Amino acid sequence: MTKTLKGIAASDGIAVAPAYRLVEPDLSFTKASVDDVEQEVARFEKAVETSIHDVESVRDIAKENLGEEEAQVFEAHLLILNDPEYIGAIKQEIKDSKVNSEFALDETSQKFITIFESMTDNEYMKERAADIRDVSKRIMAHLLGKNLPNPAAIDHEVVVVAHDLTPSDTAQLNKDYVKGFVTDIGGRTAHSAIMARSLELPAVVGTDSITSDIKDGQLLVVDGLDGLAVIEPSDEEVADYKKKGEAFLKQKAEWKKLKDAPSVTKDGKHFTIAANIGTPDDMAGVLENGAEAVGLYRTEFLYMNSSELPSEDDQFEAYKKVIEGMNGKQVVIRTMDIGGDKHLPYLPLPEEMNPFLGYRAIRISLKEDQIFRTQLRALLRASAYGRLGIMFPMIGTLAELHKAKAIFNEEKEKLVKDGVKIGDDIQVGMMIEVPAAAVLADQFAKEVDFFSIGTNDLIQYTFAADRGNEHVSYLYQPYNPSLLRLIKHTIDAAHDNGIWCGMCGEAAGDSVMFPLLLAMGLDEYSMSATSILRIRSQMKKLDTKDLEGLVDKAINESLTNDDNKKLVEDLMNKLNLG
Amino acid sequence: MTKTLKGIAASDGIAVAPAYRLVEPDLSFTKASVDDVEQEVARFEKAVETSIHDVESVRDIAKENLGEEEAQVFEAHLLILNDPEYIGAIKQEIKDSKVNSEFALDETSQKFITIFESMTDNEYMKERAADIRDVSKRIMAHLLGKNLPNPAAIDHEVVVVAHDLTPSDTAQLNKDYVKGFVTDIGGRTAHSAIMARSLELPAVVGTDSITSDIKDGQLLVVDGLDGLAVIEPSDEEVADYKKKGEAFLKQKAEWKKLKDAPSVTKDGKHFTIAANIGTPDDMAGVLENGAEAVGLYRTEFLYMNSSELPSEDDQFEAYKKVIEGMNGKQVVIRTMDIGGDKHLPYLPLPEEMNPFLGYRAIRISLKEDQIFRTQLRALLRASAYGRLGIMFPMIGTLAELHKAKAIFNEEKEKLVKDGVKIGDDIQVGMMIEVPAAAVLADQFAKEVDFFSIGTNDLIQYTFAADRGNEHVSYLYQPYNPSLLRLIKHTIDAAHDNGIWCGMCGEAAGDSVMFPLLLAMGLDEYSMSATSILRIRSQMKKLDTKDLEGLVDKAINESLTNDDNKKLVEDLMNKLNLG
Repeated sequence: MTKTLKGIAASDGIAVAPAYRLVEPDLSFTKASVDDVEQEVARFEKAVETSIHDVESVRDIAKENLGEEEAQVFEAHLLILNDPEYIGAIKQEIKDSKVNSEFALDETSQKFITIFESMTDNEYMKERAADIRDVSKRIMAHLLGKNLPNPAAIDHEVVVVAHDLTPSDTAQLNKDYVKGFVTDIGGRTAHSAIMARSLELPAVVGTDSITSDIKDGQLLVVDGLDGLAVIEPSDEEVADYKKKGEAFLKQKAEWKKLKDAPSVTKDGKHFTIAANIGTPDDMAGVLENGAEAVGLYRTEFLYMNSSELPSEDDQFEAYKKVIEGMNGKQVVIRTMDIGGDKHLPYLPLPEEMNPFLGYRAIRISLKEDQIFRTQLRALLRASAYGRLGIMFPMIGTLAELHKAKAIFNEEKEKLVKDGVKIGDDIQVGMMIEVPAAAVLADQFAKEVDFFSIGTNDLIQYTFAADRGNEHVSYLYQPYNPSLLRLIKHTIDAAHDNGIWCGMCGEAAGDSVMFPLLLAMGLDEYSMSATSILRIRSQMKKLDTKDLEGLVDKAINESLTNDDNKKLVEDLMNKLNLG
Repeated sequence: MTKTLKGIAASDGIAVAPAYRLVEPDLSFTKASVDDVEQEVARFEKAVETSIHDVESVRDIAKENLGEEEAQVFEAHLLILNDPEYIGAIKQEIKDSKVNSEFALDETSQKFITIFESMTDNEYMKERAADIRDVSKRIMAHLLGKNLPNPAAIDHEVVVVAHDLTPSDTAQLNKDYVKGFVTDIGGRTAHSAIMARSLELPAVVGTDSITSDIKDGQLLVVDGLDGLAVIEPSDEEVADYKKKGEAFLKQKAEWKKLKDAPSVTKDGKHFTIAANIGTPDDMAGVLENGAEAVGLYRTEFLYMNSSELPSEDDQFEAYKKVIEGMNGKQVVIRTMDIGGDKHLPYLPLPEEMNPFLGYRAIRISLKEDQIFRTQLRALLRASAYGRLGIMFPMIGTLAELHKAKAIFNEEKEKLVKDGVKIGDDIQVGMMIEVPAAAVLADQFAKEVDFFSIGTNDLIQYTFAADRGNEHVSYLYQPYNPSLLRLIKHTIDAAHDNGIWCGMCGEAAGDSVMFPLLLAMGLDEYSMSATSILRIRSQMKKLDTKDLEGLVDKAINESLTNDDNKKLVEDLMNKLNLG
């Protein structure tokens, strides 16, 4: 029986393959006393043995498909499975207390985990706690006759089905065989969605129930264009979706031809289409997709992928590589946005009840200003190699901006005094992502060279809704008139003060949002590199004269997000661009 | 040596008394092996015995001063201290492993706590885990020769000094003897600050270092007027502060005379001064301070102080009591704002990374609509007894408002059809606390009878800063031009559409904010009952003509929170009202 689920279209394209459920089975058990303890110990030993075979085989496949490093964790698991102290303690517990293996395994593992985790200052021991948790889960699954998913061992084409996908899940996936994702929860800005787009895999998120609706191996269609997941499609449907997928690939090929084309509207007006990147490695995709600038280089990955604070020289090299790679086109680099959901092992941050409303980004930079000064010096030195824009994240008040600029100017003067070469056209800008900054944009515009609107955070704060929280995901409303008013006020304030305004949130690459932003005169659109050609193609078909009156309706007549979605779609249909 | 700390003035008044440090001592210890285990067991037994004496005496004092119910927890502690299984297990561990009492106590307690806590579906067992934690802490303190604070046993006048005060700390305090608070962290909207104001105790919060600067019993001045804490004041200073305290009390007595006076400006314009309440018990303070309305009745306490969902009848009785108590004056009741930092034992809510940006207030009401309908029915029935305003919290979009109103109208029609008597002048309004609602206030104003601006949350979201997080407390900026613009837009939108606009956040009772709000024409000011007479006195001295031009400067010329604070203070000085 075919069943179709509606979710959120998170990444373009069509995939058809058997489902691979990356879902943990129910491992609950009942405590029982046993009479024949020898037999019970033998049952436990068998589960351990099977687990060892399991892990060895997963390790071998992981080593082959993912590399030595990714396979390392399984070596650690094998050490534990062969550890006489751990395994022996469980057997002893079975014998001493005459309890079933499940209970003895759980109790003893908990004890080991508690001890390891209590060593709060020892990162190594904490990792061992995680290992014991994984290993005990595996033995438990064998005791209960349940199947544990082994994502690292995927060796045929699949569509991965999960409640949600975390970074650690995805690190274990073999990207050669995974053809798409479908998840229960999440929105367009969830980690799984962003990853799917960067891997160019079709994905549908937020289906609510895919993990309970599908069995392992059932055929599954992912329609990342319309946000549908089709379980056990008929042959006819499979054929239709394959056709749709081919048409999409054909269109994509058409878009590829726009790689070196200018980003102009039908009536010849130019707007910049730029790319968001996280590391210098992303430059290949930026150049392949014909970005006219880097609109956002998120430097926090430089800090996160390191075991200590990156040195000024290390940072300089990374920034220089990107700036040189763009060959004279502008690169906007954002100073570090650590905190919130991003932590550094070497920079202790406070435990916070609401980290998204906490100590993060520029708030840290202004307090821990040595870290900030090091980054600014690296940026200033790199500016000699091209056209650099520096921008500050999470600015909410003019007092913060004044402080950040003062520190920047101090470091700049020091370098100039020391005779270090720096670029002569560095622009200093700020993110508009805290509502307070959008509301007062006319004052901020007098003090910076550009704005870049960060829609993900701006939406989150404007609607007071964590974008990662499925229970309030309905409040991710990029087309809501409230948000559009804040965006329009920001763009107008920029233009009134002779500076440019860009956008580097997810919304910049959204095809409903795009005509609205174009109508408001947004100057720069920075997005995932894989979205650039689609948006350039859309821009080519739009005549700015056809968009007259659209913004006025959207912010003064429409009441809801849905009203504005319909408003744009109706206009696109009228223009035969739907 | 006198030392003065600057903090945040959280509650008016002056207190001088010895410090009582409500601070946990460092209970860290080193594991050691012991040779003479019998002697070690004896040492442990002695610590247990002393702990029993301790707890018995605290229990007796608590019973006398706080009542049977508050003393109950100490009976539970005594049960554990006399429990042979728990105490025996620790002694056994000392003997078996030849370790010191501290290690055996810690390890065994951890084991018991883990077991109790793992019974996740059993509230009773989880409370036992908390009890064991408390008891083991007490024994540990005796083993280490440290003093554990016993707030329930305070029997002389003190100023309580703490890092922060939680609701459970304050429940144990004997309010007869506590003369004031000083804390390390927190702002004007922290729990400790709000409690201090409702108890009319002077308080200074956010001193950073009071707990490390003061010793138990040292004399301490709390200056809740200017936000100062003076450690070991000179005799002269004590005399001066006592004089200042008396002057304040005299002024307060003057204010008391305004109890039945109308709330009018010097030029005779009337604005409503209302009270915020949490339970019907607060009505005494409301009437004593001459409130002209209840501007905010926070119904969540009705849900929190209950072990199950309060029935329609229980709610009806509570609402009726308040409505009747106001004798024809309006009572604005907010539907439940659960979630965020407020949880219910009987309503499981999701674990959230950012609860303030999560599933709370109207978001829950619209989904769990049976709870909402019960509350609305109770409100509608109570409306027959006076003048009721109902308001919805955390509305961010018109779609939410439409849904909430539709449910309200359905329940109203059902009651009318059943012949139940309801008031004929019920007003339906909404909180303006989500930035999106403030930005689109002109559209919202067409669909409600009134607005009430919730500044605590509006500030928190507008500046993306958790108001309870000390690391970003500098972003609590009520006078920032961004926030003032949102407030002015909301008030103007209300007036343009013929509805009234109030404010029920902390800022409504702030003497710098007040002239700004008055100049904007805010209709209703709802605050802690204890602030009413102070604000009424301030209103009496202000002539609205003197405030002309103030708002324009505040939102179009000022750049920062400090600019506006100075702007108002300079004007007040010019008017000789400083």
